[in-house]
Amino acid sequence: MCRWVAYAGPEIYLEDILFNQDHSIVNQSLSAHESVWTTNGDGFGVAWYTQRTTAGLFKDVLPAWNDSNLRSLAAHIRTKLFFAHVRATTGTTVSRSNCHPFIWKNWTFMHNGQIGNWNGCRKLYESHISEEFYHCREGTTDSEAIFLVALSLGLQHNPQQAIQQALSLAVDAMAKTDAHEPLRASLAVTDGKEIWAFRYSSDDRSPSLYFGAPHTRASEHFPNEFNTIASEPSDHQAEHWHKVDEGTCVHWTRERMNFYPIELGQRFV
Amino acid sequence: MCRWVAYAGPEIYLEDILFNQDHSIVNQSLSAHESVWTTNGDGFGVAWYTQRTTAGLFKDVLPAWNDSNLRSLAAHIRTKLFFAHVRATTGTTVSRSNCHPFIWKNWTFMHNGQIGNWNGCRKLYESHISEEFYHCREGTTDSEAIFLVALSLGLQHNPQQAIQQALSLAVDAMAKTDAHEPLRASLAVTDGKEIWAFRYSSDDRSPSLYFGAPHTRASEHFPNEFNTIASEPSDHQAEHWHKVDEGTCVHWTRERMNFYPIELGQRFV
Amino acid sequence: MCRWVAYAGPEIYLEDILFNQDHSIVNQSLSAHESVWTTNGDGFGVAWYTQRTTAGLFKDVLPAWNDSNLRSLAAHIRTKLFFAHVRATTGTTVSRSNCHPFIWKNWTFMHNGQIGNWNGCRKLYESHISEEFYHCREGTTDSEAIFLVALSLGLQHNPQQAIQQALSLAVDAMAKTDAHEPLRASLAVTDGKEIWAFRYSSDDRSPSLYFGAPHTRASEHFPNEFNTIASEPSDHQAEHWHKVDEGTCVHWTRERMNFYPIELGQRFV
Amino acid sequence: MCRWVAYAGPEIYLEDILFNQDHSIVNQSLSAHESVWTTNGDGFGVAWYTQRTTAGLFKDVLPAWNDSNLRSLAAHIRTKLFFAHVRATTGTTVSRSNCHPFIWKNWTFMHNGQIGNWNGCRKLYESHISEEFYHCREGTTDSEAIFLVALSLGLQHNPQQAIQQALSLAVDAMAKTDAHEPLRASLAVTDGKEIWAFRYSSDDRSPSLYFGAPHTRASEHFPNEFNTIASEPSDHQAEHWHKVDEGTCVHWTRERMNFYPIELGQRFV
Repeated sequence: MCRWVAYAGPEIYLEDILFNQDHSIVNQSLSAHESVWTTNGDGFGVAWYTQRTTAGLFKDVLPAWNDSNLRSLAAHIRTKLFFAHVRATTGTTVSRSNCHPFIWKNWTFMHNGQIGNWNGCRKLYESHISEEFYHCREGTTDSEAIFLVALSLGLQHNPQQAIQQALSLAVDAMAKTDAHEPLRASLAVTDGKEIWAFRYSSDDRSPSLYFGAPHTRASEHFPNEFNTIASEPSDHQAEHWHKVDEGTCVHWTRERMNFYPIELGQRFV
Repeated sequence: MCRWVAYAGPEIYLEDILFNQDHSIVNQSLSAHESVWTTNGDGFGVAWYTQRTTAGLFKDVLPAWNDSNLRSLAAHIRTKLFFAHVRATTGTTVSRSNCHPFIWKNWTFMHNGQIGNWNGCRKLYESHISEEFYHCREGTTDSEAIFLVALSLGLQHNPQQAIQQALSLAVDAMAKTDAHEPLRASLAVTDGKEIWAFRYSSDDRSPSLYFGAPHTRASEHFPNEFNTIASEPSDHQAEHWHKVDEGTCVHWTRERMNFYPIELGQRFV
Repeated sequence: MCRWVAYAGPEIYLEDILFNQDHSIVNQSLSAHESVWTTNGDGFGVAWYTQRTTAGLFKDVLPAWNDSNLRSLAAHIRTKLFFAHVRATTGTTVSRSNCHPFIWKNWTFMHNGQIGNWNGCRKLYESHISEEFYHCREGTTDSEAIFLVALSLGLQHNPQQAIQQALSLAVDAMAKTDAHEPLRASLAVTDGKEIWAFRYSSDDRSPSLYFGAPHTRASEHFPNEFNTIASEPSDHQAEHWHKVDEGTCVHWTRERMNFYPIELGQRFV
Repeated sequence: MCRWVAYAGPEIYLEDILFNQDHSIVNQSLSAHESVWTTNGDGFGVAWYTQRTTAGLFKDVLPAWNDSNLRSLAAHIRTKLFFAHVRATTGTTVSRSNCHPFIWKNWTFMHNGQIGNWNGCRKLYESHISEEFYHCREGTTDSEAIFLVALSLGLQHNPQQAIQQALSLAVDAMAKTDAHEPLRASLAVTDGKEIWAFRYSSDDRSPSLYFGAPHTRASEHFPNEFNTIASEPSDHQAEHWHKVDEGTCVHWTRERMNFYPIELGQRFV
């Protein structure tokens, strides 16, 4: 089902979060605690922001736990904001194109979950991707489709609304194609400055999601500051990890974190 | 732009055609003679028929010329009918899902060419893929889309007509989206028993296509029998190779080869 | 620590053993029961015999559990004798060259275990590979080194003795370099007709090893015939699986299975 | 036969040299001008220095020309000194472990060429790798062996002498094993601050080597400053490229470039 982590805070090396934590995301690739799939070995990806507009992107189909490139890159790349993801496919092919995160211009997106009955509602759901973004589709996952539908709905102007509408369209598509599986989503999107994370499911059994303040080499100067949103805590110090509630959107900015209920009620199609 | 070869004849090892020819398809991956792209190193694929209904399928993103798996498999797999393809991408991602051949049940398809303005007309063209086949889409190439549109149009009942209609819909989609690039196609499709190969382009500059009777370890018993349709001759003996004309469909059966003009004139949409 | 399976019996499809068992080797790649490493996702390999002298060989660095090529090849390749292996590296690089099985002419070898202090005794141990076989070294594993040392010691004339001597030289090299880790080996070698499997460790904690008679589509005609030697039983029917004892060499021929104690006592260097 | 480029100068993005040149190294991977092998598609590698001691290292077995990771990393990684290499294997396996550059602590090494009769003299030559460095061997190339032999001979104290001795030992090993092929080497080594490049062959037909001052976004402030040593000029402005003579060692420091004749005459074994 995938595991992911988003970091925003003082500049660190990727390895500070990806590797140098007791229960790091790379460790979770081999042995996740709070996922139906223990093993998340069907590829991985990292997107990190530098001085350029578009995030750097590194994805591969190998498991994260023994990838020599990931190990070295994580020890050399410094950044103030990055997304990382380890994948366990729910059916679609293992390929770089299906690995998260997905990027468009300065936007980055990743997801843990599924659109129910994806095979059955895919054609309908992809029809919501506008001409402008349709050619950006590189893979076949429901996740990338949610991103492209959200972009089509104005993600870059109102990310919170666009993601909610994209999820709402997914629920609609599932209903119209008699899906018997739920929609489940713990997802995150960023413009390189702020982060919006969503925990939502149609059956109130969303994938786990936390925010926290794990120690890094930068954190001595900024203790207790929340810098991480993640599928699972990356260490065992319960005091600096907090569960994101079901049906909640977390909006992280440099100044504060806000929490909003996710409302898909108002259908708009 | 890709190169491909289709074989149908007495049982041989894959290597008889893939490697043991002066100008084999693997040799063409490194150094094609009649292609705009000399190098076809963006992955490869082979589909071969055995006693099972669906063809065996082996694809990888590495260049064919030094792939240790391909070398060994070609020396051990015996078959009476197979398709092989080496890829030079015209823009879409290098991934297994974008490598040819593509298969569905007992059908196999491969293509060398392009739909003009693919980025612009992709949404329109993919809308012609029926619900039944839409979830089979594993990659993002125009080639796989032609196959799935043809399947949606009844390929399994009338392959010649379905492919022509799929090409016709491509020309339509290009026209509706103001494509400035041509449609070009040298493609082949089989049900495991017969082969239909098409050479067509909207600007009369189709990729090269030949049929021939290259020597294999089986050919002493069946000399001069046409057993190969290919982008390029695999040896330099001009007497057993013949060019397929522009705008022609070649229909190979065990008994004979028939040639039909391709007529896209009658639009049907 | 790896898991492996060797099959010799009536001709079957690879998938009959690799996939179509409750606890198949591919299933073990994701979730082994009797191994220190639950996950064996650092590549895989299969070597199978056909009419040719040298075995066919297919290896890749991806996990076996979601490899599309392995799935299709296993459904199309028929054989009377094959070796298959899923890897969990104990330190050496993830690469095709380090995946098992290893082949030389008509011989095939695979291993689950380790030479203790491999980094420290590697130079000494590799010096036992003769000039004739030294250039065959394609990777850096202790496993491949055992195979090449055994070949240097006359594997093709007396496999049982050569493997024992190769293991004995490993124990010697470990002793000379003050290894604190044990030698552990559950390994198999074949000439394409007979199989020799060894379960041995310097601390009496060898990796698990069984022989058995799992059901395949061929087994209705040959019920109860032992056709499999494997790290773990591939089904849960205890009555047709038997543990190989510590310090035992199993010699499988078409007529019978013989069991010999492994004696490394007589040092010969 | 491979192509490579070493850069040392004002901080730039990797892409300034790897991609944004008329005849960049990535372009050379598809179509080299001065190499026996036009295509260098058997993998690639980049090692770059940051604030850390050991260089960052990114290698893959795919061709450089269409690798999405390389494209993105090159656009985001900034460095003052890096080595990049595209490979055309002369026989050894295509694997990450066989891709250049090779690193050890703060040292980085890459090579274009061959030790003659490598299969025949490999055992003898590898015996010159000391215990200390033997376990660092990750692949099977003659190139990596030269690096490890040079490290064994004190590369970190006197690189110029150690490389010459390592080449001299190669010539000796070739002589003792009746090699009929020459030694050929255009190689470079760095400690992250200075660069030593060598152009030498036993038959005076060394692979091409140049130093130059290609334009980058940094070069407006430092025009005409030599910042690049490379197999081939990366643009067509002859005035800022100079051939390195046969049998020459180029020593680049921030202040100057020195040129020394390579003398292997004094044998020392």
